[in-house]
Amino acid sequence: MISVIIIGTGNVAQNLFEAFFKVSNMSVTAVIGRSNTALAYFENRTQTLTDYNKIPQADVYLIAVKDDAILEVAKKLPKQGFVAHTSGGLGMSELLPLKNRGVFYPLQTFTKKKIMNFSSIPICVEATTESGLALLENLGKKISTKVVVLNSEQRAKLHLAAVFANNFTNYLYTLGAQICEEASVDFKLLAPLIKETACKIEAITPLKAQTGPAVRGDQKTMDTHLQLLENASQRELYKGLSKAIRETHHSKKN
Amino acid sequence: MISVIIIGTGNVAQNLFEAFFKVSNMSVTAVIGRSNTALAYFENRTQTLTDYNKIPQADVYLIAVKDDAILEVAKKLPKQGFVAHTSGGLGMSELLPLKNRGVFYPLQTFTKKKIMNFSSIPICVEATTESGLALLENLGKKISTKVVVLNSEQRAKLHLAAVFANNFTNYLYTLGAQICEEASVDFKLLAPLIKETACKIEAITPLKAQTGPAVRGDQKTMDTHLQLLENASQRELYKGLSKAIRETHHSKKN
Repeated sequence: MISVIIIGTGNVAQNLFEAFFKVSNMSVTAVIGRSNTALAYFENRTQTLTDYNKIPQADVYLIAVKDDAILEVAKKLPKQGFVAHTSGGLGMSELLPLKNRGVFYPLQTFTKKKIMNFSSIPICVEATTESGLALLENLGKKISTKVVVLNSEQRAKLHLAAVFANNFTNYLYTLGAQICEEASVDFKLLAPLIKETACKIEAITPLKAQTGPAVRGDQKTMDTHLQLLENASQRELYKGLSKAIRETHHSKKN
Repeated sequence: MISVIIIGTGNVAQNLFEAFFKVSNMSVTAVIGRSNTALAYFENRTQTLTDYNKIPQADVYLIAVKDDAILEVAKKLPKQGFVAHTSGGLGMSELLPLKNRGVFYPLQTFTKKKIMNFSSIPICVEATTESGLALLENLGKKISTKVVVLNSEQRAKLHLAAVFANNFTNYLYTLGAQICEEASVDFKLLAPLIKETACKIEAITPLKAQTGPAVRGDQKTMDTHLQLLENASQRELYKGLSKAIRETHHSKKN
C-alpha cells in the first residue's frame, strides 16, 4: 500500500490523480490546492485541503505545481516526509533543504480536461536515497509500464529534447496552419501526414526518415517556397531549418 | 471501369499500384519504368514496360516519378491521352504542351517497403477540363474517402505547409534524438509525447495547443536550455523558434 498526497490542482495533478485513483493497493490521501475553487475537481473523491498545517501523513508528497512555485510549496511540507516534484526541467536540488527528496516526471503533454492513459507514458524517477528511489519506482510501476531512472542532468536534456519534439514541432504545425489558411486550404488535410511523420520514428530513426527539398539539395523547390512565403519570420525559419538539415546530412554522409 | 497506366516504380508508384490493385471496377493496365530491375516489384501482377513506343491505351496516364523527370516522361506519352502527375509542388503547367492534363496528388509521406492504407489519405486533384477533373475525382474516390479539388496555387501552398509539418518537424525529431544521445537517454522515451502532439491538432488548433517556455516567456528555462545545447546550430534554431513563438503569440493576444 502506497499513500500519496498531491500538491497542485492543474492538468498534471488531475491526470496523476485519475491514474492513481484507478489503481489498487494505493490511495491518494489528499489533494492540496490554493483555493476550494481550484480543488473542486477532486471534491468527494478524496480529502481536499488549502491549509498546509492540516496535512496528513503519507508515503509520498508529490508536488505538481508550476516550476516557479515548487520551492515555495516544498517549504510548507513536513520536514520528515518524502517529497518529489514532477518537473522535467528542474533538478532534485530544487527541493533543498529537504533531505528525503526526489523527482517523479511523467514525460507527456497534458491538456485541460483531457485525461490520458498512463500505461505507455514514461515516468522518469530520481531520489536522494535508495529507499526513496524504490518507492518512486514502485509508484511509477503502478500506473506505467515504462519507469526509468534518470539523473537530473539526463532529465534536463530529455526535457530539452522534448521542447524540440513537442513545443517547437507544434509551432511548425502552427506555421503550416497559417500557410494553409492564406490559401483557403483546410489545415486538417495535413493530419494524416503529421501523424505518419510522428509514428515513423518508432520504425526508423528520424535521421534516416528525413525527406524533402533541403536534404535532396533541391534548390529550385526551396526558391519557389521562399517566394511563396508571405512573411519574413517564416522565410527566416525556412532558411534556418533547411540550412541545418543540409549541414546535418552533409556531415553525416562525409 | 477506369484503366490506369502508372509511369514510375518508386514509393509513390508502388503505393498507388497497391491501392488501385485492391479496388474493383478499375485496372492498372501497365507500369512503365526505366529498367526491368526497377519494374521487378510489379512483375506478374500487371504488364511491365520499358519501351514508351509500346504503351497501351488507358483512361489515365499517371506520372509518379521525381519532380525533375516529369517533363521528360510526359513528352514520351501519347498526345491524345489524359496525363496527370502526382507531385504536390508542381503545377499543371509542368505537363505542357499536353492539352488533357491534370494533377493527382496523394498528400502523404511514403517510405520504402511500407504500403499505406489510402482510405484517409487526402487526394488533391486538378485538371484542364471538366471531364478530366471528373475522371480524377472518380479515380481518387476509389481509394480514398478524402478527395479535394485544389488549384495549382493552393496545392503549392499545401505542399509548402507539408514541408513545415513533415520535413522540418522530422528534423526537430532528429535534433531531439541527438540531444538524447548526448545524455545517454533513449530517444524512444519521447515517442508517446511526439504522437500526442501530432494527434492533438485534430482536437484543438496548434495555435491554442502551444505550450513550453517560449510561449510562457520563461526566460530562466530558456537560458538553461541554451547553456545545455552543445552545438551552435542547435542554439541558433532554439533562439529562432523561441523568438518566432513569442512573436506569433504576442501579436495574437494584442
